[in-house]
Amino acid sequence: MKQFSKEEIDKFIEILDFSKIEGDLIPVITQDFQTNEILMLAFANEEAVRRSLETGYAHYYSRSRGELWKKGEISGHVQEIQQVITDCDTDTLLFKVKQIGAACHKGFDTCFYNEFVNGELKRIGKKVFNPDDVYKKK
Amino acid sequence: MKQFSKEEIDKFIEILDFSKIEGDLIPVITQDFQTNEILMLAFANEEAVRRSLETGYAHYYSRSRGELWKKGEISGHVQEIQQVITDCDTDTLLFKVKQIGAACHKGFDTCFYNEFVNGELKRIGKKVFNPDDVYKKK
Repeated sequence: MKQFSKEEIDKFIEILDFSKIEGDLIPVITQDFQTNEILMLAFANEEAVRRSLETGYAHYYSRSRGELWKKGEISGHVQEIQQVITDCDTDTLLFKVKQIGAACHKGFDTCFYNEFVNGELKRIGKKVFNPDDVYKKK
Repeated sequence: MKQFSKEEIDKFIEILDFSKIEGDLIPVITQDFQTNEILMLAFANEEAVRRSLETGYAHYYSRSRGELWKKGEISGHVQEIQQVITDCDTDTLLFKVKQIGAACHKGFDTCFYNEFVNGELKRIGKKVFNPDDVYKKK
């Protein structure tokens, strides 16, 4: 699991361009480091990038809840960061991760489980858990 | 190369959520359909999604230029769409494509060619063309 020093993280934050998405955010694509399957897309603010690189676990910023979140905090389905990659404009991040459990809160291995075929969404992802069991109702 | 009818495209536009990104945009991840390598991330408005599905070639919306663009229009490095996939919230798209030439306008096979290692960006992508040759200076 990849971790970075404070000095390294400061340098990285300096390089990144948070100006493109309202709220000073950067899109983060998360990809399985072994299969190259895309698991999810989420957004990070500076603090989420910082926490991700400090701890080695993927953190994001929830625009709907207005807060930082660690992926898997409730479900245990954490993402251990293996590689941190940027695009050519340094305005998008790619985390290659080891996904513990499954990426999608709806119970699928990946959030990208619906293909558009013949005018309809067709499930192509694998359902691996029941969200009601994992996210206990309050 | 995948193409869709007007009725199918209308249905698809209806399903998608363009409300999350300023300017009624949806992020589009583009992935090589054979290797699963991530090629780029860009944004699409309704018209760009429509043109992509009508023609079978990836189109995006440029926020900096404020216009629709067909990937590869100048360079010839077009993307033939093989699969159109959405995430669980239908607010992100994934195009699995056959990339003709290379994805990155800076000459690399993918835009994600820089890994953050030891406090620096390290090139991990393959340079496959010289941008000066492909994008002729005016």
